[in-house]
Amino acid sequence: MTETANVLCLRWLGIDTGREAVIYMRPDCPVCRSEGFGVHARVRVRAGDRSIIATVNIIRSDALGEHEAGLSETAAQMLNAQEGTSLTVHHAPALESLSAVRTKIYGHRLRENSLHDIVRDIASGLYSDVHLSAFVAACAGTNLDRDEMVFLTRAMIDAGDRLDWGRTPIVDKHCVGGLPGNRTTPIIVAIVAAAGLIMPKTSSRAITSPAGTADTMETIAPVALSPDAIRRIVEKEGGCIVWGGAIRLSPADDILIRVERALDLDSEGQLIASVLSKKAAAGSTHVVLDLPTGATAKIRSPEAAKTLSDHLIAVAGSVGLTVRAVVTDGSQPVGRGIGPALEARDVLAVLRGEAGAPIDLGKRAASLAGELLELAGAVATGEGLNTALAILSDGRAWRKFEAICEAQGGMRTPPIAGHRYDIKALRPGRVEYIDNRLLARTAKLAGAPFAPAAGIEFHAPLDTLVDRGDPLFTIHAETPGELAYAREFLEAHPNIVKVGGA
Amino acid sequence: MTETANVLCLRWLGIDTGREAVIYMRPDCPVCRSEGFGVHARVRVRAGDRSIIATVNIIRSDALGEHEAGLSETAAQMLNAQEGTSLTVHHAPALESLSAVRTKIYGHRLRENSLHDIVRDIASGLYSDVHLSAFVAACAGTNLDRDEMVFLTRAMIDAGDRLDWGRTPIVDKHCVGGLPGNRTTPIIVAIVAAAGLIMPKTSSRAITSPAGTADTMETIAPVALSPDAIRRIVEKEGGCIVWGGAIRLSPADDILIRVERALDLDSEGQLIASVLSKKAAAGSTHVVLDLPTGATAKIRSPEAAKTLSDHLIAVAGSVGLTVRAVVTDGSQPVGRGIGPALEARDVLAVLRGEAGAPIDLGKRAASLAGELLELAGAVATGEGLNTALAILSDGRAWRKFEAICEAQGGMRTPPIAGHRYDIKALRPGRVEYIDNRLLARTAKLAGAPFAPAAGIEFHAPLDTLVDRGDPLFTIHAETPGELAYAREFLEAHPNIVKVGGA
Repeated sequence: MTETANVLCLRWLGIDTGREAVIYMRPDCPVCRSEGFGVHARVRVRAGDRSIIATVNIIRSDALGEHEAGLSETAAQMLNAQEGTSLTVHHAPALESLSAVRTKIYGHRLRENSLHDIVRDIASGLYSDVHLSAFVAACAGTNLDRDEMVFLTRAMIDAGDRLDWGRTPIVDKHCVGGLPGNRTTPIIVAIVAAAGLIMPKTSSRAITSPAGTADTMETIAPVALSPDAIRRIVEKEGGCIVWGGAIRLSPADDILIRVERALDLDSEGQLIASVLSKKAAAGSTHVVLDLPTGATAKIRSPEAAKTLSDHLIAVAGSVGLTVRAVVTDGSQPVGRGIGPALEARDVLAVLRGEAGAPIDLGKRAASLAGELLELAGAVATGEGLNTALAILSDGRAWRKFEAICEAQGGMRTPPIAGHRYDIKALRPGRVEYIDNRLLARTAKLAGAPFAPAAGIEFHAPLDTLVDRGDPLFTIHAETPGELAYAREFLEAHPNIVKVGGA
Repeated sequence: MTETANVLCLRWLGIDTGREAVIYMRPDCPVCRSEGFGVHARVRVRAGDRSIIATVNIIRSDALGEHEAGLSETAAQMLNAQEGTSLTVHHAPALESLSAVRTKIYGHRLRENSLHDIVRDIASGLYSDVHLSAFVAACAGTNLDRDEMVFLTRAMIDAGDRLDWGRTPIVDKHCVGGLPGNRTTPIIVAIVAAAGLIMPKTSSRAITSPAGTADTMETIAPVALSPDAIRRIVEKEGGCIVWGGAIRLSPADDILIRVERALDLDSEGQLIASVLSKKAAAGSTHVVLDLPTGATAKIRSPEAAKTLSDHLIAVAGSVGLTVRAVVTDGSQPVGRGIGPALEARDVLAVLRGEAGAPIDLGKRAASLAGELLELAGAVATGEGLNTALAILSDGRAWRKFEAICEAQGGMRTPPIAGHRYDIKALRPGRVEYIDNRLLARTAKLAGAPFAPAAGIEFHAPLDTLVDRGDPLFTIHAETPGELAYAREFLEAHPNIVKVGGA
């Protein structure tokens, strides 16, 4: 078996399969014939000094010549391959770490080296969607114990790059478990950077929510920046609000998050490893964690918040982080917008101190910024909140935010959706109950976060008195199809916002 | 939103993605623009009165016109769509049964209606690979209790067709957990049908093994037959040996099996539901189950065999089946061949009574056939084995087998592989230990079951005395690449057959 027998020439097909790497081959090409590859085979594809594992799809048409192969767009990017590049194709090596995944599925504990091997293979792109999903399911819920959480967190840090800022403290914050509209991060960065702390904030895109901080911030300024650019911005302004995925911080996390999103799955251990690995890899030393708690929030009870908080503090300690967990009200959305651009508008209103800016969002952000100022020793205990409020109200935070956006590539205006629909109160009364989960799901059906202008504009916080016909919330969509899809869902779920007798 | 806005014209692309249904669309086609579909969206595709759920892949090339879409081969077959067929594309309905999958992942028990909904949605093709894998992982190992096994079995029966033979007993057998080369089924069918019992045997293809009975039998006669053809054959000959996938018996099982194979996962509950749902749907009343038990067999200990046997008998009773579980020796391969054609050659040698036919295979088949004759009341207790042996040795079984093959479409000769390699003893001594799992894995790396002639020819049962240089087993492959791949694996695992001091 000579090496040349395994070489095919890349033909551009323009097929985008998402993140999964696919190679398209003819069944009668020399490689399929000599290696016995069929559909779904996992193969190693080399181009120059790069190599990936891809899944075989078979093409029975003359879209490919006998000595040609196609690659999905992701696969071609990973290999840096263009039309005409020579591809060498072999059987993929056996995936030994899968036996540890099976061990976990069978209910046994995973050792540190097993989790290390699994996470390394995931970060290297060796796992197919079927493999990833099985691992995610095996570790979901409360299936990981404290030691496994520590092992997973360490493995995820080790599988990527780690930033070193050459000084301390480096502060950060994270909202665990999401609450629609709770977009405090850009405001907090602006406040604490204005106070002189260093806060190089890397955020993720949405996992199961209608918007992640990166999605929201991207409607205001560029967020997909290189490590060098991020360092320059932080050196200059003391803070940034960028997408973490462009720098290889805990890259396994991004891969796992895609599968968690497809399953809409909660996973205590993976949540903890995801949050803390990103923070540790980003070089943070002091971190405040926001834990919104409420009946329809991700964290449903004070007891659940306590358990999660205990795990977070313990695991953080084992990877060298000082954290403070703050339990906040999770009974209703924060601010008015739910969805990238709609949340961005709230953030801008608070920072600019506009009349009619959502007061609840500004208060939460100042409170968390205050905790961070205290945790990092920038102010004395008890003085955090007032310091933060002062920086927000006197315009220092807004000026810092403008400077950060400028440094990230320039501020822009969040888009407005072309298709809207008001959901109105069917009777007069008092807003008694809001289902955050169904509200978030409606925003997603309307297109968020992929359609940045899509989502929900929320008009009726708890205890609001409404008349019959008053709008409770407005659906925003970029296409008529998505607007219809969200409305269809609401017809099946009429009580997302419940109005009781006045 | 008018219906016509969602119509695209099918263009044939010839892309085979395996079982997963994929629709290829241009990002600028009217459907993607109006509905906001992106890569990985799950959509409902209608063609005439048929409808499927497919995953969106995006094509950025002129392989498609602006009003055209492509379908993977499987998707086109499911829709019975040809080039030019009009496809209507909408958002897929929300998959409500996924919340029950999450419930199971979080460690809770599933109720009967939850499992019913999940299995119905799986059989309807609504689950993506990521969803299937999560469900399989959640139910793997010993994660299903007795009630859940019963619910899953019933749900799998209900999700497909059910045959009714209008008489009783209808007999069947199944080998649970596989042992390389243990291909007794064709021999047992020939014996019991020759004895006058009705045995309409539907078999699966390999799950994680180098050959399933359907794979093996297909090298001797056609096995992919229509329900009508199967009925005619059974009416005429009293038995058949066909592939069960062509008739819709427990169709969810075939979908789950593909994912289990990709994960190489053992699952007690799914194994039980798989076996019993197929038997019940096939209209069987009396079933003998072969449970090979040994250190490197799927069932590793007599205790594990007892647990499994108890579950099987209890669940069988709840779906109206009478079963007998027979624990057999699982310490080494049965017969000489491992792989479709190689096992077929063993079967033919035993049925023909050839000198040098593998005695162990003939004995096992006669013993299980004897149990079946007794269980169905065809002979008195204690007379089964001798009756079976007589039918095998006097040629009645061979004549019945020939007649069945003729009725299935004509007997053919199993192929012989073009590439072989002997693994030889490195020292003289006695064969002390055989690793069935690694032997099976080698056969699979050599190409089995997809390459029918590929596999292992085994020469050295336990306690055989060998000289240095004697062949222990021979790898058979259809391509040089697969032969090299299997040899590479053996270099890393030299002690699959262990020879001890003489």
